Amino acid sequence: MSLQSIADLACPAPLGASETVLLGHGSGGKLSADVMRGVFLPALGNPLLACLNDQAIVSIGEVKIALSTDSFVIHPLFFRGGDIGSLAVHGTVNDLAVGGAQPLFLSAAFLIEEGFPIDSLRRVVASMRRAADIAGVTVITGDTKVVERGKGDGLFINTTGIGLVPSDVELSAHRARPGDVILLNGSIGEHGIAILAQREGLEFESEIESDSAPLNGLCAAMLEASTDIRCMRDLTRGGLSSALNEIATQAHVGIDLRESAIPVREEVRGACEMLGLDPLYVANEGKLIAIVAPDAAEDVLRAMRNHLYGAQAAIIGRVTDSLAGMVTMRTPLGTSRIVDMLAGDQLPRIC
Amino acid sequence: MSLQSIADLACPAPLGASETVLLGHGSGGKLSADVMRGVFLPALGNPLLACLNDQAIVSIGEVKIALSTDSFVIHPLFFRGGDIGSLAVHGTVNDLAVGGAQPLFLSAAFLIEEGFPIDSLRRVVASMRRAADIAGVTVITGDTKVVERGKGDGLFINTTGIGLVPSDVELSAHRARPGDVILLNGSIGEHGIAILAQREGLEFESEIESDSAPLNGLCAAMLEASTDIRCMRDLTRGGLSSALNEIATQAHVGIDLRESAIPVREEVRGACEMLGLDPLYVANEGKLIAIVAPDAAEDVLRAMRNHLYGAQAAIIGRVTDSLAGMVTMRTPLGTSRIVDMLAGDQLPRIC
Repeated sequence: MSLQSIADLACPAPLGASETVLLGHGSGGKLSADVMRGVFLPALGNPLLACLNDQAIVSIGEVKIALSTDSFVIHPLFFRGGDIGSLAVHGTVNDLAVGGAQPLFLSAAFLIEEGFPIDSLRRVVASMRRAADIAGVTVITGDTKVVERGKGDGLFINTTGIGLVPSDVELSAHRARPGDVILLNGSIGEHGIAILAQREGLEFESEIESDSAPLNGLCAAMLEASTDIRCMRDLTRGGLSSALNEIATQAHVGIDLRESAIPVREEVRGACEMLGLDPLYVANEGKLIAIVAPDAAEDVLRAMRNHLYGAQAAIIGRVTDSLAGMVTMRTPLGTSRIVDMLAGDQLPRIC
Repeated sequence: MSLQSIADLACPAPLGASETVLLGHGSGGKLSADVMRGVFLPALGNPLLACLNDQAIVSIGEVKIALSTDSFVIHPLFFRGGDIGSLAVHGTVNDLAVGGAQPLFLSAAFLIEEGFPIDSLRRVVASMRRAADIAGVTVITGDTKVVERGKGDGLFINTTGIGLVPSDVELSAHRARPGDVILLNGSIGEHGIAILAQREGLEFESEIESDSAPLNGLCAAMLEASTDIRCMRDLTRGGLSSALNEIATQAHVGIDLRESAIPVREEVRGACEMLGLDPLYVANEGKLIAIVAPDAAEDVLRAMRNHLYGAQAAIIGRVTDSLAGMVTMRTPLGTSRIVDMLAGDQLPRIC
């Protein structure tokens, strides 16, 4: 495939009026970008929304506030390493944290299918509370809607969070520069594989748990270590690949990864091989990347490794001035391959 | 029914562990209060959430911020007088406005069923934009999730809004005092009847439109007219009755209405009679009540009547020191009846 045709894939044709929404439009991949660029931006477009960050940052009076929203439709609701309640807290906390914000308050909106067990609802809400306490955020307002049997799927949760952005923090993909270093806080693919294994009833030798975790403490420690962090992203739907492709596109830079530097646990690698999946595309819920100025990389890496959620942190690649908008990866054999964005879903309803 | 047995209804027994969620748990009536007091408050409880207002108000640095969230599951998506897009803007704008906040920014999260027409999505999003422009708010961040066919119902939208609360504004149901006056901005029941008519294919002599509208301008004009407004509530699920019962319970006061003073359009009254509904319980999306100190009532009423969305404003009753926690209504015949809160739904999925 020529570079031009790959570039065409990254800028898909506008959606036609007669089309319908596909599962892949919620994937975080190219189809998601289509619906964003073809439906939401033309109608709602404004400079903040157009940033396409996972959070928007606005000034209200003297304070800078970050706002982020996420609906959680994960199936199954309870999984190894978490449940929809803890996930709904971690997801929004992390979206705020990678914007440089200190997450403070959450809203929680429950969309329940008639017939859902009250006892399961209690378990989910108790889990939300524990996760919120650990992350240091408070659920201050909420909403409950119930839909008829067959018009929902048990339980969906939306959380929206507000956080305080220190006045000297300004993180944006647009600040990535050739020469910058890419840091990752640990091994990838565990959330997606844990969900898939449970959904499909697969058994692996060692049980794989979701990595779902609150990353606000880690982000704060990194920002404390250096003011030369360009941007951070958490690696959820679409995995490491989607996050890096988005940054490469937004910053008009190339990104070059070293495959051997990307931590993947043996069990996850084995499961991916068996299932024909690539860990680069599998969802995480406790992983982030940071693009960091070269001089700051060692300090930030040290701060990450000193944190519970960054013990396996690694430098996994660099920002380059060639192949702008693209992510490439050097394999252990010395060859280089393009790490494209997926069109649709590897695994639907992963978060 | 004795007053004691009515009081028992207002404080229902705790939910058992074996129960399941009913449609009525999303009604805004007593069953909603059950799930709030039986599930959400025990687990998530904190002073802000326990206020049970439609918005939470917090201080961040020097500014007071209001946060409010709502999921919209209305069926049908397009109705006379609006659609799920405009409703999702008005609903959250109004929840902020009745808290005394100036609504500023919204998040919008779309939960779409696979197969939903892109063209319908475009119409909804365009409508959101128009409604946001008119209300003076901006959608600054969003999320899209897609679920499989049969696991949703076309389109659900969550909006969460943040607003700025002037430092001298502090509205709360707890501030209502015997002698206070109850103001209503116009005729009730239009939203619910419009939705029901459309859903059931009913034809009335004159077509009834939803009253869905942004009330932030009206609220600002009222607060401008007097600082002696105790609290405001918009009248959505559960109608006028639910809003007043909530205030009576929270403030431990009685509320006495004059039936003849409550504006109801002839067509709505006729439809309600035909359908066996009571307009006091029917949902609105552009109506609010204000509890106002007696000396301020005339000023606030004048400000309301000068506003597009308050032309039919009226004094509909008073706060009393008898029958605390209860709402009563004097009929044109001079008798008095109790206006209780509904247990469940008159009309499910009305917003």
